[in-house]
Amino acid sequence: MANAIIGQSGGPTAVINSSLAGIFKTARDGGIKKIYGMKNGLAGLLREEYIEVDWYIKNEFDIELLKRTPSSWLGSCRYKLPDFEEGSSVYERIFKILNKLDIKYFFYIGGNDSMDSVAKLARYGENIGSDIRFIGVPKTIDNDLDKTDHTPGFGSAAKYIASVVKEIILDNMVYGAESVAVIETMGRNAGWLAAASALSKSEECAGPDLLCIPEVPFDYDEFYNKIEELRKKKKSIVVVVSEGIKTADGKYLCEANNMRSRDVFGHASLGGTALYLTDFLRTQMGIKTRENILGSLQRSASHIVSRTDITEAFMAGGYAVHMALDDETGRMVTFNRLSDDPYRIEVASHAASEVANIEKKIPGEWITKDKGFVTQECISYIKPLIQGELFPFMVDGMPLHIYL
Amino acid sequence: MANAIIGQSGGPTAVINSSLAGIFKTARDGGIKKIYGMKNGLAGLLREEYIEVDWYIKNEFDIELLKRTPSSWLGSCRYKLPDFEEGSSVYERIFKILNKLDIKYFFYIGGNDSMDSVAKLARYGENIGSDIRFIGVPKTIDNDLDKTDHTPGFGSAAKYIASVVKEIILDNMVYGAESVAVIETMGRNAGWLAAASALSKSEECAGPDLLCIPEVPFDYDEFYNKIEELRKKKKSIVVVVSEGIKTADGKYLCEANNMRSRDVFGHASLGGTALYLTDFLRTQMGIKTRENILGSLQRSASHIVSRTDITEAFMAGGYAVHMALDDETGRMVTFNRLSDDPYRIEVASHAASEVANIEKKIPGEWITKDKGFVTQECISYIKPLIQGELFPFMVDGMPLHIYL
Repeated sequence: MANAIIGQSGGPTAVINSSLAGIFKTARDGGIKKIYGMKNGLAGLLREEYIEVDWYIKNEFDIELLKRTPSSWLGSCRYKLPDFEEGSSVYERIFKILNKLDIKYFFYIGGNDSMDSVAKLARYGENIGSDIRFIGVPKTIDNDLDKTDHTPGFGSAAKYIASVVKEIILDNMVYGAESVAVIETMGRNAGWLAAASALSKSEECAGPDLLCIPEVPFDYDEFYNKIEELRKKKKSIVVVVSEGIKTADGKYLCEANNMRSRDVFGHASLGGTALYLTDFLRTQMGIKTRENILGSLQRSASHIVSRTDITEAFMAGGYAVHMALDDETGRMVTFNRLSDDPYRIEVASHAASEVANIEKKIPGEWITKDKGFVTQECISYIKPLIQGELFPFMVDGMPLHIYL
Repeated sequence: MANAIIGQSGGPTAVINSSLAGIFKTARDGGIKKIYGMKNGLAGLLREEYIEVDWYIKNEFDIELLKRTPSSWLGSCRYKLPDFEEGSSVYERIFKILNKLDIKYFFYIGGNDSMDSVAKLARYGENIGSDIRFIGVPKTIDNDLDKTDHTPGFGSAAKYIASVVKEIILDNMVYGAESVAVIETMGRNAGWLAAASALSKSEECAGPDLLCIPEVPFDYDEFYNKIEELRKKKKSIVVVVSEGIKTADGKYLCEANNMRSRDVFGHASLGGTALYLTDFLRTQMGIKTRENILGSLQRSASHIVSRTDITEAFMAGGYAVHMALDDETGRMVTFNRLSDDPYRIEVASHAASEVANIEKKIPGEWITKDKGFVTQECISYIKPLIQGELFPFMVDGMPLHIYL
C-alpha cells in the first residue's frame, strides 16, 4: 500500500488536531505505509517541508494528547492555488513532490479556501491521469461551510463563547449600576459565533440582550433605539456583536478604526467593532461600557471543548481515510443531521468544488422579527453541538499539549 | 447567639463566592442565628438592601454551586467610607442598621479599599463601645494585598492566564510567519497577573518571550531593541503586558488612547495598552501583530479555576468566622507560607488598617536583570497557587451557576 500525506490549512480550531488524529489513526490502522504531514499546508509542501507523523505520534496517549492540543499541530497556511488554466507549474511541482513521496492519499483539513484547493488538485490529477486521491475534511469555527449540517470546530467555539458570555453577564451586573457590556466574536460574514452566545440563556441566566450579526445590516438609529428600550427594563445590558457587521451601504463598522492590511485572499483583517460600539454608547448615549473582545481564544481555547465536536472531528478524519481507500477524490466529508433531539447525524460527502468559496449564513427564518436575536430553532440547532466535555490532561496545574 | 452579615466589595474574582460560602457554612454550623447578605456591599447596606442568605442557599449542593459561580453573588460596590473625623453620619447610619438587624458579626470580602472600610468600621465601633466584630476576608486577582503571602482569587486568575497564554502561544505560531502577539492582562500597579503567564513555560512550551510589568518603567527604545533581538531568534514572539505600564515620567502607555473616566477612588480606568503596543510594532517596526486583551474573564472565568485557590478562599471565609467568634475585630485573614514544595501555608490575621491602601508589588529581586521577565523564585512562588482543578457543574453542555 502507498503513502498518505495530511495538511492543515486556514485558521485553526480547538479540534483541528482531532481530525488530524482521526486521519492518522485510521490510516495507520488501515495499513497505509507512511503517513506524512505537510508543515504549513500546501505552502510548506511546495518548499518540501514535511514530517513523518509517526516519528512524533508514537502511541495511543500521543493520539489523545494531539486531540486535546489546540492550534494546527502541523502548522497552517493561507495559500491559495491559482486556477490551473492560468499556469500549471505549481500543480506540476506539487504532483512531482507527491509522486516522489509515493503519496496516494492526500488529506486536507480546512475551510472553504482549502476545499477550493482540494477541488483543483483533484481536477488537475484527473486531467493528468494521476491516481492520487484528494479528500477534504471540513474545519472552521465560523460554521460557514455549505453542504454540511455544521463544521467541526464550531461546536467547541460555540461552547466556549456561550460559557464565557454567561460568565461575563454575571460579571457585568456586579455593581448593580447601568452598564453595557459589548462582547465581540469572530465572524466575517456569518453570525454563527455571535448566535452561539444565545445558548447562555438558561433557567438561571437571561442570556445576552441583543445580537448584532452580519446577516442584518447595522443601523445606528435602530441600535440606539434598542438600547434605549433595554435601558428602561434593566441596568446590566449585554450586546454580542460579530466583528464583521456592516451598515446597509456595505461598510464595516470597524473600518474607520482599522488600519490593517488584507490577507492574501483579499479578506480585510477585522477588529475594532466592539471598541467602535462602546465608543458610540459612551459618547452618544452617555452609558458606562466595557468591551470584551474574545480574540484568538475562540479558535484555540482547548481548555473548554465540546466532546461532541471533538469526537465528530476525529470521526470526520477517519471517514476521509475510508473515502480515499474507496477511491473517491475531490470530495469533502459532510454531516447530515437526522434529528436534533435525540441528536443524530450521518457522515456523508460532497464534491469539494461545490463547497468552495460559498459562505453559509444564518437563514433569515432563524433571525427574530426584530432582527436582534436568533429563534429557538437556531438555538435547537446549535445546542447538540456543544454537549459533553473533554477536559485537558492537566500536569502541574496546566493543560498539557503536544508540540511538533 | 446574634446575627451576622456578609458583604462583597470591589472587583469580583472567580472564587469570591467560595469565601462567601465558607463564611456562610461556618457561621451556620457555628450556630449564628441569621446570616444576612448585603446587596452591593456597604453601598447597598446604606440603602437597607440585604437578603437572608439561607433563603437562597438551602443545602450542601447550593454551597458547592455557589463556590463554582463567578462574579460576586451578592453584588459589589466601589463605595469608600469617609474618615469618621470628617463626619460620623454615615457611620451612625450603618451602626443603626446593623443594630436593627441584631448583627454582631460583620464580614467584608474585598481588596485594600475594603480593608480600609473594615478598619474604619472597627475603629468607630470601638469608639462608641459597640460589640460588633468586623473581619475582612482578602480577595483580589491582583495579588497586591500586603501582610498576606497571596490573596484568594489570584491563583485562579493566574491559572486562567497561564493556560490561555499557552494556547495563544500555539495559536500565534500557526502560520510559521513572523508575528508578535501582544497579550494584555489586568494589573494597575502590580505585575502579578502578567507574571503568572510565565507559568506557561514548560517542557513543551517556550512561554512568553517578554513581560512588560508596571514595576519596570516602560522604555520605547528598550522595547524596540528587545523585539529586534527576539526577531533574530524566532518568528513567533509573544509579549505579555500589564494594562498599567507607564513610562519613566509616570504616564500610562494607554493614556493617549484612553478617553474614559476615573472611578470613585480616583483610579483611572485603564485599557488600550496592547492596542498601543501593537500599533507601535506595526507602524514603527513593520511587524505583523495580533492583540489579545484578556478582559473581564481574568476575574470571572470560573470554567477553569485553581482548586488550591478555591479551597483556600473557602477556608479564609471559615477562619474569619472563627476569628469573629473569638471576639477579634478590625483584622483581615492572612496566609503565611511555610514552604513552596511541598506547599504549606498557615492561616493567620493582621490588622486591617495596616493592609489598607498599600499595594504589594513584585519584589525587585524577582525581576530578571534584563527587566523583561521574572525569576525562577517568582515562578516557584506562583506555581503552588494554580495547582488542582475544580470543574464547573455542567448541565446541558454549559456551566451551571447560582443567581440571586
